Amino acid sequence: MDQSNTPPDHRSPPDGAGRRVYEHLRTQIADGTLGPGAALPSTRALAADMGVSRTTVTTAYEQLSAEGFIVTSGGRVACVASPLAAHPAPRPARRARKAPPLSEFGRRVAAIEMPAAVPADAGHVDFLYGAVAFRDFPVLAWRRAYQAQLLRHQERLCYAPPEGDADLRRALRGYLARARGLRCDAEQIVVVHGSQQAIDLCARLLLDPGDRFVFEDPGYLMARRSFEAAGGRAVPVPVDAHGLVTSALADDRPARLAYVTPSHQFPLGGVLPIARRRELLQWATRHEAWVVEDDYDGEFRYGQRPVDALQSIDQDGRVLYVGTFSKALSPQLRLGYLVLPADLVPVFRQAKRLADRHAPLLEQRVLAALIDSGAYERHVRRVRRENERRRAALLEAVARHLPAQAHVGGTAAGLHVVLWLPWLAPADEPAIAAGARRKKVGLHPLSPLFAHGDADPRPRGAGFILGYASLDADAIDRGVRLLAAAIRAHASG
Amino acid sequence: MDQSNTPPDHRSPPDGAGRRVYEHLRTQIADGTLGPGAALPSTRALAADMGVSRTTVTTAYEQLSAEGFIVTSGGRVACVASPLAAHPAPRPARRARKAPPLSEFGRRVAAIEMPAAVPADAGHVDFLYGAVAFRDFPVLAWRRAYQAQLLRHQERLCYAPPEGDADLRRALRGYLARARGLRCDAEQIVVVHGSQQAIDLCARLLLDPGDRFVFEDPGYLMARRSFEAAGGRAVPVPVDAHGLVTSALADDRPARLAYVTPSHQFPLGGVLPIARRRELLQWATRHEAWVVEDDYDGEFRYGQRPVDALQSIDQDGRVLYVGTFSKALSPQLRLGYLVLPADLVPVFRQAKRLADRHAPLLEQRVLAALIDSGAYERHVRRVRRENERRRAALLEAVARHLPAQAHVGGTAAGLHVVLWLPWLAPADEPAIAAGARRKKVGLHPLSPLFAHGDADPRPRGAGFILGYASLDADAIDRGVRLLAAAIRAHASG
Repeated sequence: MDQSNTPPDHRSPPDGAGRRVYEHLRTQIADGTLGPGAALPSTRALAADMGVSRTTVTTAYEQLSAEGFIVTSGGRVACVASPLAAHPAPRPARRARKAPPLSEFGRRVAAIEMPAAVPADAGHVDFLYGAVAFRDFPVLAWRRAYQAQLLRHQERLCYAPPEGDADLRRALRGYLARARGLRCDAEQIVVVHGSQQAIDLCARLLLDPGDRFVFEDPGYLMARRSFEAAGGRAVPVPVDAHGLVTSALADDRPARLAYVTPSHQFPLGGVLPIARRRELLQWATRHEAWVVEDDYDGEFRYGQRPVDALQSIDQDGRVLYVGTFSKALSPQLRLGYLVLPADLVPVFRQAKRLADRHAPLLEQRVLAALIDSGAYERHVRRVRRENERRRAALLEAVARHLPAQAHVGGTAAGLHVVLWLPWLAPADEPAIAAGARRKKVGLHPLSPLFAHGDADPRPRGAGFILGYASLDADAIDRGVRLLAAAIRAHASG
Repeated sequence: MDQSNTPPDHRSPPDGAGRRVYEHLRTQIADGTLGPGAALPSTRALAADMGVSRTTVTTAYEQLSAEGFIVTSGGRVACVASPLAAHPAPRPARRARKAPPLSEFGRRVAAIEMPAAVPADAGHVDFLYGAVAFRDFPVLAWRRAYQAQLLRHQERLCYAPPEGDADLRRALRGYLARARGLRCDAEQIVVVHGSQQAIDLCARLLLDPGDRFVFEDPGYLMARRSFEAAGGRAVPVPVDAHGLVTSALADDRPARLAYVTPSHQFPLGGVLPIARRRELLQWATRHEAWVVEDDYDGEFRYGQRPVDALQSIDQDGRVLYVGTFSKALSPQLRLGYLVLPADLVPVFRQAKRLADRHAPLLEQRVLAALIDSGAYERHVRRVRRENERRRAALLEAVARHLPAQAHVGGTAAGLHVVLWLPWLAPADEPAIAAGARRKKVGLHPLSPLFAHGDADPRPRGAGFILGYASLDADAIDRGVRLLAAAIRAHASG
């Protein structure tokens, strides 16, 4: 038997091995890799790592200690001495002589202007949409289920199926039927890394560069950017208090897909009536177009049963339903799912496998266990009540602190409302947001979500998206009071 | 204040509300959404969900009970009666009248033939590459760190930065310098969903349809498929016992990137010598090409310190380094990272944000804590020793059970070797694998990893990839013994 590439078995130090160990550590200390106070590896571990004897390492440590770079005492692990030069050594310049080009997709991505996510400072009341309260997360139930799944024996740890864990898909099928009136087989479900990945996969698999897509105006910017990065051209269709104005869907500008939020239009909050739902599906059939239904907060409807998903009345297999755990659990989990027309299942599975193999298995199994035990639906009901209270506090605070002309839209569902200030102009929004920020209130203007920004030709006032799911009632009241002050200051400024 | 869309406050049941509740449950029972024995929601919960009174729900439950669909007793929660029709009702056909087309990317993905992942049956000894042992996972350390991070207070749960948690990137920077000789700023790191997402992002951002990419022949199929799905055309470059034969890089067939595994060539196992590393980087500079360095198992080198990453000698900012936690922890975690030339950082961050926002925050923080405390490196050393033992067991078993002409390659590093059977032909591989499978041994042929499969024109014998990281020494010995029997049976068959 010939074992090619087998390393030599002996580990006698090569010439100058002690010097090599010394220089290795010296460099790491000089450039900050091993910062002041950092523990050095044990002599045994470093000896094994560098393929030298332990004596060699000890000698190098002694040298470094003698030179004052490290501190050793008795049998304790050696530490880097402090203070040393606090800053790492300058690195070699990393600029390419002539950088190779990006792909066309890369150039489109690089050209997209996205507002940098500005994290709110601590202590701010941030009406950030998409954030949820830390204390709403079901820590105990999650921890218990996580521990159980962590200890659950597996024959080996290997890649899992791209479409997601079978138990989770089966549990989701039942949940979606109970909660969203959505009928599907578990086979139609693909588990993804949050709704953003669902949208990105739709963009990649369904749109070619130059293709048109119907987009709600105003609408969800991150979805629009994904479709544009794929080379799509947005066809903005206006939105009113009931969602997408389907009568404005033009027959002369064929589109490959429509991206819609029928359960709770983002951002304006309308719930699409059944007649418009039918009209949208008929349009899709007429144009051989796909419909991407983003049900981003469909669990949160107040005062009545949530409206069934658009997917539930789709007869032709045109609707791709997008669901997420970001609102009911946490946006930091990065877990969501697609419910696909049966024809699209194979290509989405394959694309998911190429994109990143599959969603993390342990978290999928935790979710499956929580849904199966009923804990997930109890949690959703509890959070829905919490958010109903927050919504009430917000409406009260607006009535208390803001002029009577202010009005609030989109309150029937979801985790945000839109605050309209009809006596102000869209162009006033940035100044008011800046004033609010100085008062420690995070405020998010509406205009960037319109296709034409604050140059939108339709007559409308200034508007702000007020997300409330991460705030308690006191913070909501304080935030609206400070926001009212910022509006007054703007008027008098 | 005008609250448009505010729902009515009263919840008096509409006409026939009881009927609606009844039909809702009746349908769910009929189609299996609520299977035999399933608990029904409490009357209070269902009443709240459907916006009807509790009395209405109770009446509906009584009706269902009277008809024998559900069972109620005393104050207990009602359950679906059994046995009922075991199979769900047939669903409406979901075929589109005429399905809208897929994108070009979608059609390429649909056309890719990938072997379905065949999970090994329980009890099989599977030499599956990429699997690791369940008992190697550091359950206690992981659980402790996970609990601590789960309880760590956050002002709100909101989206995290696309490039990954700052603590993890800082910890990784130190780890990579210590373990892989890799010098970078934490700013150059982007945390992704495993190395597959790193590869997919490279494919999307660096390759246009029709562009050529250099690919090791034989090489890692999932990477090749990602580049091909992006429309790239593979330029296979042969591999010998020392990795990529860089002298075979043609100057007359310009390529936009090269995908390489210099630390431990996949699958043949060579470690690329320094002269070839320099030649590869010079080629990249000459052709304005990128180099994607997949360091998929670089932590696992036996008998001497792991070879430093190719990235560490890159002066021109051409190398994109891909690292993963799949081998040292678990492939089911789906966590890896890119170390990018500084110029590429903004576009990769933006693309990651559009692809799926960011990697899950909690797991990132767990990893940061484990690296900072030194637990991660202690774990890697422990697993390296385990795998050194497994490798020794495998080499012993091959010597004991297989004919002397059999030889093993690529043993200096990694978690797999290649078993060569020079007296057999590549075309014999499937029959031997099938025979082994009948003996409960999972065996994975080498030929599919060659550009031309078993029609590869170079003279070579049959080969198999033997991954050993998920097996104990006994299973390895048993597996090789059964594999030897399968080879004998094939010869005499």
